[in-house]
Amino acid sequence: MKIQDEAIIQSLLDIDFYKFTMGQLIFKKHKDVPVRFKLTNRTSSVSLSKMIPLEQLKEQLDHVRTLRFNNSELHYLRGTNEYQERMFQEDYLQFLKNMQVPQYQLEYNGDDLILELLGSWSETTYWETICLSIINELYYRNLMLQKSRLAQDAIFATGVKNLLDKVKVLRKCPGLTFTDFGTRRRFSRPWQKYVVEMMMAELPQQLKGTSNTKLAMDLGLMPTGTAAHEMDMGYSGIYHSSDEEIYGSHKRFLHDWREMYGWGLSIDLTDTYGSNFFFKEFTHEEAVFDKGLRQDSGEPIEFGLKALEFYIKEGINPKEKMLIFSDGLWAEKMIDIYRYFHKDIMTTFGWGTDLTNDLCLKPLSLVIKLVEANGHGTVKLSDNLSKAIGRPEDVERFKRIFGYKNNFSETCKY
Amino acid sequence: MKIQDEAIIQSLLDIDFYKFTMGQLIFKKHKDVPVRFKLTNRTSSVSLSKMIPLEQLKEQLDHVRTLRFNNSELHYLRGTNEYQERMFQEDYLQFLKNMQVPQYQLEYNGDDLILELLGSWSETTYWETICLSIINELYYRNLMLQKSRLAQDAIFATGVKNLLDKVKVLRKCPGLTFTDFGTRRRFSRPWQKYVVEMMMAELPQQLKGTSNTKLAMDLGLMPTGTAAHEMDMGYSGIYHSSDEEIYGSHKRFLHDWREMYGWGLSIDLTDTYGSNFFFKEFTHEEAVFDKGLRQDSGEPIEFGLKALEFYIKEGINPKEKMLIFSDGLWAEKMIDIYRYFHKDIMTTFGWGTDLTNDLCLKPLSLVIKLVEANGHGTVKLSDNLSKAIGRPEDVERFKRIFGYKNNFSETCKY
Repeated sequence: MKIQDEAIIQSLLDIDFYKFTMGQLIFKKHKDVPVRFKLTNRTSSVSLSKMIPLEQLKEQLDHVRTLRFNNSELHYLRGTNEYQERMFQEDYLQFLKNMQVPQYQLEYNGDDLILELLGSWSETTYWETICLSIINELYYRNLMLQKSRLAQDAIFATGVKNLLDKVKVLRKCPGLTFTDFGTRRRFSRPWQKYVVEMMMAELPQQLKGTSNTKLAMDLGLMPTGTAAHEMDMGYSGIYHSSDEEIYGSHKRFLHDWREMYGWGLSIDLTDTYGSNFFFKEFTHEEAVFDKGLRQDSGEPIEFGLKALEFYIKEGINPKEKMLIFSDGLWAEKMIDIYRYFHKDIMTTFGWGTDLTNDLCLKPLSLVIKLVEANGHGTVKLSDNLSKAIGRPEDVERFKRIFGYKNNFSETCKY
Repeated sequence: MKIQDEAIIQSLLDIDFYKFTMGQLIFKKHKDVPVRFKLTNRTSSVSLSKMIPLEQLKEQLDHVRTLRFNNSELHYLRGTNEYQERMFQEDYLQFLKNMQVPQYQLEYNGDDLILELLGSWSETTYWETICLSIINELYYRNLMLQKSRLAQDAIFATGVKNLLDKVKVLRKCPGLTFTDFGTRRRFSRPWQKYVVEMMMAELPQQLKGTSNTKLAMDLGLMPTGTAAHEMDMGYSGIYHSSDEEIYGSHKRFLHDWREMYGWGLSIDLTDTYGSNFFFKEFTHEEAVFDKGLRQDSGEPIEFGLKALEFYIKEGINPKEKMLIFSDGLWAEKMIDIYRYFHKDIMTTFGWGTDLTNDLCLKPLSLVIKLVEANGHGTVKLSDNLSKAIGRPEDVERFKRIFGYKNNFSETCKY
């Protein structure tokens, strides 16, 4: 088998850990809700359909459908106790044991690669990071094949040197901690593994874990992740009978989440409908209970100040709370944010693209988002309108429902 | 077996090809002349004895004494016809078949590593590049072991990027040709192989061969090399009864050489006693007969002009002659020399240290030179007095005998 044909996803555990934390809630509460996920390529300069032969992509996706969780993988999940004793319950694990990811719908249309995943939420959700990892790696494999062996080696060489530079920069700021969030944007599976292994060796006190469950298992690292926009979005489709119910769906999700995972996973993602809405609805009791907040769009410092202000106003000691930043980070930016806040509130970082795809090839900005749940179009607004997801009419409706007034729009670094 | 213990020399063919061209002449004419070779470390900032454990070095040297030329290696030499039909005669090949390199003498004295090779010239000569390759690779292995895996990878990454830079520079000058002369200074055996393979792939019209016989065999490249200072130096010890005989020993060697290899290997090394002496004695007939000249010290442009002037004065068309430059070259320097001369005379380049040891670790400048032959101290003056070899009193005597007046002295780049 040639390298370009080697299976990219070799284990169903090779996905972000939050797929399981979300997956259990979905399985328990909304197993059969029909959903649709869809790929968006934000890097419009790249034609995925021209770079990745249809047959190659099908072969990789079909291979994933032959995979099942094996015994050791289920043992690993069953034994997970980092957030809560035996957080994954037996009925969920038995469900996983027999699960196969559902059919995908793939079509090439001019420059576009149209990929949709339809099925029950409880099974379809697992496709997200799998598809992103596959498309990324196929894209880079094909790009590399256009180059000479020396040019390929020089690309890896750049990656190694960039990685060493990151280590040198972060070593100067030993209080800063981070987690690998780079599965979805990785240059390749082996490269993600290499990067994480090097970070383990070079910055053992600063690397706190990886979102990649298989890597965490293989390297003995902490598997990390809580919930994604997908949950708010799914809930908005399920609780959709009126504007009020949609408005309330955010709180319903957070309620179900806290009920299932308690304090252990109580890091709230704040930007699905904009952080202004989030803080408006965030109660004193919730803020006291929760571990902290995740910032995934907009201005991180601005967000951090907003959070600090909230905690102080509520008489909550921010030093006991944690902010997780996960939007388009790089070493120097993390240090700026860390230095700005570390005396006032705990911070940590979910480091994605720049960690696992900083060779000298431009990273792709691909997302796979839940665009429909329970027959309704879903919406993500975020604190950066260029990251908004949803049909225009739905976006307008949700902006109205959630009182969204932000006009900040910025092309992401990635 | 750990990498640091792996045998560096795995074949007696892993030496410079000129050891065989010289070796056959030595075998035929001066088989039993007693000689002494000695290591000199010109990189005084590095203590070899501190960097390389005695036992490690002994293990590698002892391993070489277990090696014999195998059948395929002898076939390869027997089949060599690039310079002359069946240039290696059967009696010489039979001699090689049974040959073992003689004992070495190794002593650690403070910062110094004292390595001497004593024995008959016909057997001892093979140690030269072997010892240099071994000491280099052990030095870098030990240096690398002090570094983290990422730092090691970053060193290789620098090597890859430097190599790509060389390719880009040389591609702009497609008429320039070169040969790998880097066996003795290589970072490691695998690295030399990598570099040569990349050059084959990237600059197939410009890479003309390698001095490493094993690499040439393995990669199907042209094995290259003619004669070294060792020949003049050895002959000076054999023909030593008077100043006149010493003076004449240079011509005796060239006579024997031309007799054995004819036009095929008639590239004269010009600087053993300084190029002024060489040109003073170089006759019209010799210049007509010979392919060309090799420059290995001093100023290359100055030397080239001297050679051009000589050919023109003798009414010989310089366009039919070749200058080989082999002293401390790098890509831009080769291009300068090539552009200066290529319309008037053929040029090519023997590229050593900068080709096979340009990572981001300082290259060592080690030489192993014939310091005694037939009981007499030998001398190399060269066109750069800082490269002179010999006991001070012998150097003074040889300067007088050969009318050496050059005072140019320059620390080599390598």
